[in-house]
Amino acid sequence: MLKGSNILRLGDYNQAVVLDLIRRAPGRSRAELQRESGLSSQTISNIARRLIDLEMVHECAPSDPSRGRPRIPLAVNGAGAFSVGVHIDPARLTILLLDLSGRVHRHEHLRTPQRYDPAEMTSLIAAATDRVIREAGVARDRVLGVGIAVPGPVDVRSGTVLDPPQLPRWRDVKVRADLHEATGMPVLLDKDVTAAATAELRASAHSDFLFLYLGAGVGAGVVTEGRVMRGVSNNIGEIGDILVDPEAEDLGWSGRRGGLASACVPEALARHAARAGLMELPDVTDHLAMDDACSRLVEAADGGDATARRILDRAAVHVAVGLGVLVNFLDVPRVVIGGPLWERLSPRFLPVLNDAVRRELVVARPAFEVSGSRVGERIAAQGAAELVMDHFLAPRATSLLVE
Amino acid sequence: MLKGSNILRLGDYNQAVVLDLIRRAPGRSRAELQRESGLSSQTISNIARRLIDLEMVHECAPSDPSRGRPRIPLAVNGAGAFSVGVHIDPARLTILLLDLSGRVHRHEHLRTPQRYDPAEMTSLIAAATDRVIREAGVARDRVLGVGIAVPGPVDVRSGTVLDPPQLPRWRDVKVRADLHEATGMPVLLDKDVTAAATAELRASAHSDFLFLYLGAGVGAGVVTEGRVMRGVSNNIGEIGDILVDPEAEDLGWSGRRGGLASACVPEALARHAARAGLMELPDVTDHLAMDDACSRLVEAADGGDATARRILDRAAVHVAVGLGVLVNFLDVPRVVIGGPLWERLSPRFLPVLNDAVRRELVVARPAFEVSGSRVGERIAAQGAAELVMDHFLAPRATSLLVE
Repeated sequence: MLKGSNILRLGDYNQAVVLDLIRRAPGRSRAELQRESGLSSQTISNIARRLIDLEMVHECAPSDPSRGRPRIPLAVNGAGAFSVGVHIDPARLTILLLDLSGRVHRHEHLRTPQRYDPAEMTSLIAAATDRVIREAGVARDRVLGVGIAVPGPVDVRSGTVLDPPQLPRWRDVKVRADLHEATGMPVLLDKDVTAAATAELRASAHSDFLFLYLGAGVGAGVVTEGRVMRGVSNNIGEIGDILVDPEAEDLGWSGRRGGLASACVPEALARHAARAGLMELPDVTDHLAMDDACSRLVEAADGGDATARRILDRAAVHVAVGLGVLVNFLDVPRVVIGGPLWERLSPRFLPVLNDAVRRELVVARPAFEVSGSRVGERIAAQGAAELVMDHFLAPRATSLLVE
Repeated sequence: MLKGSNILRLGDYNQAVVLDLIRRAPGRSRAELQRESGLSSQTISNIARRLIDLEMVHECAPSDPSRGRPRIPLAVNGAGAFSVGVHIDPARLTILLLDLSGRVHRHEHLRTPQRYDPAEMTSLIAAATDRVIREAGVARDRVLGVGIAVPGPVDVRSGTVLDPPQLPRWRDVKVRADLHEATGMPVLLDKDVTAAATAELRASAHSDFLFLYLGAGVGAGVVTEGRVMRGVSNNIGEIGDILVDPEAEDLGWSGRRGGLASACVPEALARHAARAGLMELPDVTDHLAMDDACSRLVEAADGGDATARRILDRAAVHVAVGLGVLVNFLDVPRVVIGGPLWERLSPRFLPVLNDAVRRELVVARPAFEVSGSRVGERIAAQGAAELVMDHFLAPRATSLLVE
């Protein structure tokens, strides 16, 4: 049963088309909406009135009121609808509240509790969801639902986290149903890389790019012609096994020797650092300890430690080999990188990556570029919240199911 | 200037929509066309009459003439329009004539002359184009144009073959303009893998797959949701550098050591065979000699030679590693393999590949399958001819330019 917000009951397809036009480019007048939607002026007029009554849309000051009948721009009313976005990274837990205009009102970054089982995690997320809504002073019936981004693989049909290598206790967990029960709100589940690519697309001027996600794991999202690709089972982007270093030593872990994950995920970086004598190897089942080890490695490099710099520079070169594979294959003009680990790595990685990826390219690409995400560390949580907005408000709904 | 066939002058957008519906699923009645196109019954009636007058469409026998007003199925008239497809593989040259119903009327497989320069090749292709049209007894004004599939990279905007590693004399050659001048017909240029994926999609019941092309080079096409992906510069599918064998020896060639190309293209197979003492290494600048070396290697394996079998089985395992990378990344449910080399390799490769690719997969895929193309060796030429049909007849034209 879908226990949605009341504002949903009044929607119809034409209304969704018009609201979507206003969301994507605020400031359109009724006449412009009519032209772009193909709907009649009477229909546009009725829908605009209804959206204003619902407090989803408001009229802005006319651009030039002195000239004849004024052209009144319409814009979404941020407070008209909200969604909650959650990102469960094995080391970082992010919960935020997004409004209809795309503004983030509250966000919480927590260190992911390492010894919690999924039921305890569900309670934690439900409590945080209540908290961000309450502290923002938002009426609960204005919140459309909760989107959760998780490491793959996922089964979006059943709303299940299957067996993510980074979350060993999360095997066949029905996250969507559990969180729906705990919050009473509609819940949507998606893979972290897909959610992140969605947020990046919304924040970016570009419609074709590869999104590289660096967190406790490594993954990729793909955006082509302004659409986020999902893959046939919504599990696009498993790239950790791509061979990037034929001379790699055995790291003594479960990941593929010489694979992309063994070059850049926190556990691998910690193992490289421990081998080089920079630190003791922390408990590898503790993602917080791994995450902290990465922070120490970056700090050492920033402080001038040559070994730490060598480890990170080699990691960047190996990431470039993996990106070369993906860019050559899919013929994309641009790579954007983000995720919880990226903020720390970018100052050392970005200068290396642009040249190193370019050396891997088979087809000449003068305008090719590698850049960092504009959205920051909360990107997957924000994307999950965007997916909820799209699910309920966009005329062409995503294929995701909601509990 | 576009010197098209006269039958084009009469088309319009609605006519293209209706013709496309009839092409995709022959046997629809006017009432069904009306329902599916959203056009009025008067418009459908007029368009059907016009298409029948143009001899593009004909009426079939009613399905059940005894019951009331008969439902008359419409089908395309194969002889209503034709296109020529050309595939320039460095070892095999294919030229064929396709009709509107998708039937291939004439095809020629030639061994690609190795010492020809592009101008000589253009003359050869123009002569063969004249020949297939003449020998099929087709009026030239019924031929929409010529599609050419070539190894990448290509610049589709200018109709130029850039610098394909397998065609060293073809650097910045304006194939499209040259062949247009030689034939007087509209000419369209595309990459071999994209043309092949187009033909496979048309012949297949599947709408999501990865197409692996094995010819003088190795490449990939991607079909998602019934559409052939092209990449932002129409150069999708450069996969030869993907590392598949970290222990590979240096083959002494320009390809990447341990890369997918070094596992499976004819020159690499010939080098492996020569190293193992099975044959003298032929002249590596002669693609016919390389192609023949592959044939001899396969014959030796079929005859029971253990060394030849080991070489081909190892090649299949390495191809599987590369396919694993692509399937894990893009989340596709199926791989289809074709191209000029595939016919010979498939009996040994296919039994190995299904299991070997499955071992590479990160996400469980019970229904995953690797299969051989249904279209056969002429697949890229047929796809090039299909692209010409789509360019002139489909309502949503491809982004390809025509000279």
